[in-house]
Parts: sequence; structure tokens; C-alpha cells
Amino acid sequence: MRARVKLLDVYSGRFSIVISEKDAEKARLHPEDLIKLETGKKTIYGNVVISSMVEEGEIGISRDILRVHNFSEGEVVTILPAGTPESVRYIKKKMHGGKLRKVEIEAIIKDIVDRKLRDIEISSFVTSLEINGLDMDEIAALTIAMAETGDMLDIDRKPIMDVHSIGGVPGNKTNILVVPIVAAAGLTIPKTSSRAITSAAGTADVVEVLTDVTLSLDEIKRIVEKIGGCLVWGGALNLAPADDLTIKAERALSIDPTGLMLASIMSKKYAMGSQYVLIDIPTGKGVKVESVEDARSLARDFIELGKRLGQYVEVAITYGGQPVGHTVGPALEAREALKTLMEGKGPGSLVEKATGLAGILLEMGGVAPQGMGKKMAREILESGKAYAKMREIIEEQGGNPDVKPDEIPVGDKTYTFKAPAGGYVTLINNRAITGIARAAGAPEDKGAGLKLHVKVGEKVKEGDALFTIHADSEARLEQAIVYARRTEPIRIEGMVLQRIGNI
Amino acid sequence: MRARVKLLDVYSGRFSIVISEKDAEKARLHPEDLIKLETGKKTIYGNVVISSMVEEGEIGISRDILRVHNFSEGEVVTILPAGTPESVRYIKKKMHGGKLRKVEIEAIIKDIVDRKLRDIEISSFVTSLEINGLDMDEIAALTIAMAETGDMLDIDRKPIMDVHSIGGVPGNKTNILVVPIVAAAGLTIPKTSSRAITSAAGTADVVEVLTDVTLSLDEIKRIVEKIGGCLVWGGALNLAPADDLTIKAERALSIDPTGLMLASIMSKKYAMGSQYVLIDIPTGKGVKVESVEDARSLARDFIELGKRLGQYVEVAITYGGQPVGHTVGPALEAREALKTLMEGKGPGSLVEKATGLAGILLEMGGVAPQGMGKKMAREILESGKAYAKMREIIEEQGGNPDVKPDEIPVGDKTYTFKAPAGGYVTLINNRAITGIARAAGAPEDKGAGLKLHVKVGEKVKEGDALFTIHADSEARLEQAIVYARRTEPIRIEGMVLQRIGNI
Repeated sequence: MRARVKLLDVYSGRFSIVISEKDAEKARLHPEDLIKLETGKKTIYGNVVISSMVEEGEIGISRDILRVHNFSEGEVVTILPAGTPESVRYIKKKMHGGKLRKVEIEAIIKDIVDRKLRDIEISSFVTSLEINGLDMDEIAALTIAMAETGDMLDIDRKPIMDVHSIGGVPGNKTNILVVPIVAAAGLTIPKTSSRAITSAAGTADVVEVLTDVTLSLDEIKRIVEKIGGCLVWGGALNLAPADDLTIKAERALSIDPTGLMLASIMSKKYAMGSQYVLIDIPTGKGVKVESVEDARSLARDFIELGKRLGQYVEVAITYGGQPVGHTVGPALEAREALKTLMEGKGPGSLVEKATGLAGILLEMGGVAPQGMGKKMAREILESGKAYAKMREIIEEQGGNPDVKPDEIPVGDKTYTFKAPAGGYVTLINNRAITGIARAAGAPEDKGAGLKLHVKVGEKVKEGDALFTIHADSEARLEQAIVYARRTEPIRIEGMVLQRIGNI
Repeated sequence: MRARVKLLDVYSGRFSIVISEKDAEKARLHPEDLIKLETGKKTIYGNVVISSMVEEGEIGISRDILRVHNFSEGEVVTILPAGTPESVRYIKKKMHGGKLRKVEIEAIIKDIVDRKLRDIEISSFVTSLEINGLDMDEIAALTIAMAETGDMLDIDRKPIMDVHSIGGVPGNKTNILVVPIVAAAGLTIPKTSSRAITSAAGTADVVEVLTDVTLSLDEIKRIVEKIGGCLVWGGALNLAPADDLTIKAERALSIDPTGLMLASIMSKKYAMGSQYVLIDIPTGKGVKVESVEDARSLARDFIELGKRLGQYVEVAITYGGQPVGHTVGPALEAREALKTLMEGKGPGSLVEKATGLAGILLEMGGVAPQGMGKKMAREILESGKAYAKMREIIEEQGGNPDVKPDEIPVGDKTYTFKAPAGGYVTLINNRAITGIARAAGAPEDKGAGLKLHVKVGEKVKEGDALFTIHADSEARLEQAIVYARRTEPIRIEGMVLQRIGNI
């Protein structure tokens, strides 16, 4: 069937192709049927929606499609029914416990990216991976297939470094320090980050307070070839596009099959051309990987996968049992990171972690002798060289390099929780802290979040300030206060934990 | 957020709730987010679509919702974000190999029916069942939960009989004979059937040629209490509504987990109040259950499940290696069934199977002595009592009882395939026969299908007619001919299959 394109202001979250009831009858199409839309140049797949929004002989294209493909009003296209994709057979093979061959994995990933596989098939694939797993051959094939179905960066510098933190620790603005330190040492580090999904602020959300993070691959290439580093939002790039679609299913089911997690992370590093990759696995209560044993096992997988991809991978298992630094939320974290870079010093947990990770990268990249990386990283931070590099990054990405921490606006509706009794801080609950910051409006409200006045191990007196919530509105502040009262974000106990009498 | 309802002429295949971009921003909603819509009387769940089809302060309700729930234009409702349903945890429990408790299964089924679980979660559930299975406790709980979340029939007659054929055999119009035979013997048989999904004609599609099959439960109750039987479309009733939603995922993945199949069939029998149920499992090449061993194992499951539900179940394993009777396609099958009822005799495969199944039901229902059921069924058929009962059914359901087989219109564009050489018919390929009839337009085009002039074992001469395709249009006829040429619907071989010489 041939039809004229009508551009529709509809955003349904999937590739919707709208046809009239008459045309649906003639072509025997039903809502949600998979159809193929052909122009002279391209073939795209989408789901049938039937509506009087379009006339007979017209097809409506939703904004979801227009974000990815260009169509012009009135353009003539052909629509055809699309059969069941061949890759469904491979999903069933994994469902029934088989090992997938490289070409089978490639077919699944290609069909996911082409939207031939939809929620039902993708969810079945993800569920089958959760139950039956993937071996390292399969994970390597999956990683490469995910990278190669998207755009890839080719930077004319060597070696290319990268760092990635497995999420879960609130306030983890570490890489905003690591990248300028490493680039200031002459290495190349085209760092992409994500926005918050379940956290209060992703690195991209924090950097966005300081400068633009939505850059094209061409802009990244220009900037990184010039100044050695960048801090951009990976989501603006077409890196491993299958990932967004599998993540949707993983999130709905709150599962994260290990093989898919490894492929998701490493496919983006592979697409960015990274040769030396440092993976930071925070461990502790309330983060993704709670035990050191699990972290070690995951570390071995990352290293092995790196070998298959021709990448040298090292892993740092870090402490993630409480927030990093004192702030949580985009603007508050941007202030803290910028202040630490400007002054060359800052909260112990932030500086120790940043210089520790940067030091490993300096050694991996061959600019620091073994065992000397952390010292060199600290010198670069303290000397102001890291701040100078950060100014370059901010400027090249389109921000104002002269911005001062105190000039960054934060939520002006505040409330401070105080210690109900004296004692020692024995626990800061990561999940509760994240929940409070999100209730206050983070990450959408950049100024929302909270500031911790204490960290684990500190002694407090009754009435001492524990943390201050920042919000943009009274309503949001109220929500965050209610949330904080329902949870136990900070635990204070007397130092005597147990006393057993003379029975 | 409160909003005024706008009724939209959009049919998206799911519960779509359309909001404006402004409202989406304010409420922080994104496309596909699950939201809860509350009126004073009911709560329904749906997916966010963002569009300028509605103004700020309005929400659009798609026709998918309006088919199930009443809304009036301008009605004021409240929409709220809906969190992750608790039942996702139970799906994950099954994913990870656990045994589900009754309340957990009830929660999953209720959330499926309420549309709180969507494609992603339902597909994960179905995939988990395919991999990890269900034990009989779980299947019984699933069956009852599926029945009780829908409507149920309460007929004031006893005993209530039922018969169900597990699909796959083309031309299986058997139950159109079984029901009037059983009802003519004084038993009660409120038979619901399905339409074709992958076949060329479901029983409901065939009966619809003779009379209306879209009846309400109240109408069914009235008719069955009056004349003892009916032949209606189950899809018009709200029986086990979760089934349609799980079937969607099963079909996309072409899987059919045994536990879910048992629950799907038996939940509808349970909802119809059936006490004595006969399950027909055709076996043979090209049908759902190919081996007799698999059929026996499935039979034991049906019987055991029946016990848990308080139903007496018997199973007939029948021959399904070739089509039943000589016709495939709604109108052609309706002609053949009606002719057989009128004349009291017809094709051997049809009469043998129908009287065999009806005979078992007569014995189960206590109106025929053991071993005498089939003989009594044949007498009812031959005497014209079955035809008289069928006339009552046709009339009560709104059709014309005087219709004659030859008056039923069939596709007038025909083409006959002839034997290329003489020999014996050694195989009729079920899948190819179904494919030809569907290519010709069945089941949508009632008159489309094919007529077999030979059956397995018959001797043919070169040039003898093998089968005739019927279609409503030349284009469809051509498609069916092309399809038939690509496959091997009928195999003819010399009777000497092998001759080994004196070496």
C-alpha cells in the first residue's frame, strides 16, 4: 500500500505509524501489528495505530520516529506487513538453554535497533539472559554487536583512556575530577556519562550545570583532539543504541543480567575507541554490588571481556558505603566538584577517590611510574593544572569557564535536620539519601538535593546540623522532609555498642 | 492532577491515555509511563502518550479503553503516577525458579487484567513459565484466578457438559456436529469456541456463516436453559480475560508453555460452569501435539487439573494427520457440517470423529450405557434429531434455520489442482493446506478456502482433481495458487515404496 506521510505531534514512546480505519481494513492490519515502511532510501519498522487523525491514503508518523528519521509532509511511502523476525528463533534458543552463535547475537541486536523486535521480544530476551546467562564468547559478541550497530568515535590520539563507575553511590562526582587530572597529564580521555535513572544525579546532570553536555561525535572529536578530554552526555550520541531498549525492560523488571550489564558498559567504551579502561566498582550497603566477593568476580569478568575486545582493563574496588563528598544533587555536586578543583583540595572521600582512580589511569597510560600515579594525580590537582584543564573543557563545550562555585544557583527553600541526641554517626543510608534528594526534585530540578554536614564516624552533639535539604519550591521541600522522616538517613549511636554484665 | 476527558478516535492496541506536553512536564510524566486514572467509581491503568491532540487540562481516552470502560466527554477525572506493581516481585520469583503461592498467582493475574502489567512484564512471566514451568498446584491456582477475574456463567441445569479440541487440524468442524447430538440427547452443553488465530477457520468462524455467534452471557443462559446447547464465540464474552493478554506474548514468541495452555483452556470451561469435560487431542504430523506419548502425558495433566477444579475430565486422542472431512475455510466447512447434519451421513472422517466424541460425552453424562455412546450418537445423527437440534440452535442464536447447504455462498473464483501422475495419496500436509486456505483469504473472507477431492490412501489417475481453491477475488486466488505451487499439499506415490533387487 502506498500512502502520503503526515507528520503527527504524538509522542508514544515507540515507533507508531497511524493509518485510517479504511486502509487498515483493506490491508488487513490491526493495532500493534508490525509493519515495514519503505521510502526510496530507507526501511523502517513500526507499530500500527488506527485513527481518524489521518485520512484514507495517508499515514501518520509519530514524533518518536521523527527524532531518528527524517520525513517530509506529503512524501509518498510504501507500507507492507512485516513477518516475524528470524531473530525470534535465536531468542527462543537462549530461552531453551542454548549457546548463541555470533551471527545469532548480531541478528538479535540488529533487529532490536531496527525496532523489528519490540517490548515482548526484548523482554523475553532479557528474561532468558537473567535465567540462562551468557558465557564470555557470547558477551564479547554481544558487546561488539551493540557497539557496531551504533556510531563509533575515531580519535587521532593515543592511548585513549576511559573510566567508568558502576552506579549506586550518591554524590559520586569523582569523575569530574578524574577526567581533567588525566587530561592535564597529557593523556586522552573522551569521557561519556549518563544522566540519573534511579539516582539523584548522573555525572552528565552535574556537568550540565557547568557547561553543555549535549555534543555531537564530531564536536567531541574536535575537542578531545585539541585538549585531551571532555565530559559529555552519552545519551546524546548514538552509542550502542540497543542498550536503551534493553534497559527499558530491565528497569521495568528491576533485573540486570550480568552479561548484559557488562556488554552495556563495555560496548560504549568500545564505540569510543577506548584502549585502557578503568572500572570503579563501589561496594557497600545500598549500592549495586554489596560484597567484595561479588565485586572481585565481576572484576574478573570485566578484565576477561576487555581481553576479547583488545582493551586493557583494570578494576578498582572502592568503598561505597556512604555518599562521596558532602553533596547530593546536580547543582550542589557541581559546586563541590568545582570548588575542589579550584582550591586543589576538598572533602577527603572525594579527593582520595579521585586521585586514587586518576593515579591508576596515569600508571595505565604510562605517564606515571608504577606506584607513583596517585601522588602525581594529587600534584596535578593541588597545582591547579586540573582546574586549568577543567576550564578548557567547560569553555570548549560551550560553558563559562569563569563561573565560581558560589555563583551556581541552588534551591533556596531549605530545611536542616538536627541530631536528636549526641553520639557517633554509624550509618548514612545511601538509598534514603537518594530518595530525599529525588523527593526534593533532583535530578530534574538542578538546584534540588541535600548537603551532608556529617559523615560516618564523626561525633555529634544534640542539636548539631546533620544535613540540609535544598529545593526549588516549598511543595518539593515538604515532600523531601516527609520522605526523610519516614526513613532513617543518618543513624547516630553511642560509641558503646554492647555491654555485657556480670551475670 | 485533575483533567477533563476527551474521547479520541484512536485505537492503539493498548490502554493509551493522552496528555498535553505542558501537563506532562508539570506532572513529570513521560511517554509509556504507567498512570492511574480515577473517577468516583473506578480506577483504570494506562500508558501515557503525549500529544497536542489534547489541550492543557484535558486527557484523551483511546478507543481501546472505551471498549471496556464507559467515559463521557468532559467528565472530570484524576490522574496519578502508578508505581511498580507488587506482582513484578512474584514474576521475578518464578524467573528465579521459585514456586508461586496462590495469592501470588492471583496478584499477577489481577494485575494483568487491570492492565497494571504490560507487554514487558507479561512477556517476562510467559518466558519464565516456558523455562521454569509450573507444578499442578500452581496450574490449578492459575486456572481459577484466570476464571474468577472474568465473568462466569451459572446455568440452572445439570450436568453441564463441554468439549474442547486442541487446535491444529484443518477442516475440524467436528464440534458443530457434537453439540447438537449431545443436546438432542437431553444433556446441557454451552459450547464456546474461538476464531482462527493461525488456522483457516475456528469453529466460531464456521458457525458464524450459519448464525450469530456474538452473544452475551445472559443470552447464552436463556438459550441453553431452553434448548440445552449453543455454539457461540468465546471471545465475545469476558471469560478469563487475562488469557488474551498472555496469548499476545505467546504468539509473538511462538511459545505455548504447557501450564499456561492448560490454564487457558480449563479456565474457560470453569467459567462456563462445566462439570464434565471431554478434551480432544489430535495427534499426527503438522498438528500441535505430534506424538501419542506427548498426547498421553498432556491427557494426564488435563485429568489431574480437572480433579483440582472439581471437574470430571476425559481425553480422546484422535487422528489429526490430515484434514477432517473434505473442506477447509468458513463457508465451505459450514456447508459440509450442515449437509452432514441434514442427511445424517457424510465424510467418514467427520462422522466417525463426531459420533466418537459425542458418544463419550453421552456416556460421561449418564444417558448412554458404557460402550453404547457412539451407537446412540450415530442414531441421533441419522434420525435427524441432531439436525432438528441444530435448527433450534441456529434459530435461537438469530440465524435462519431453513438455510440449505447449497445456498451458502462460497468464493466463486476457483482453481483445481490435478494429479500430475497416477498413484496413491500418501500424505496431505496440514500446514500447507492451512496456508493455501489463508492465502485465498480465509478466515476473513468467509467464502475462501479449499475443497479436497481425495484423502490419504485413495488411488488417483493422472489428471484427477486433487483439490479446488475457492476465493472471493482473482488476486487472492492467484496468491493461493502461488502458495500451493511452492508447497507440497498432497503427495502421490506409487504403492510400491521400495524394491530391493537380488544383488
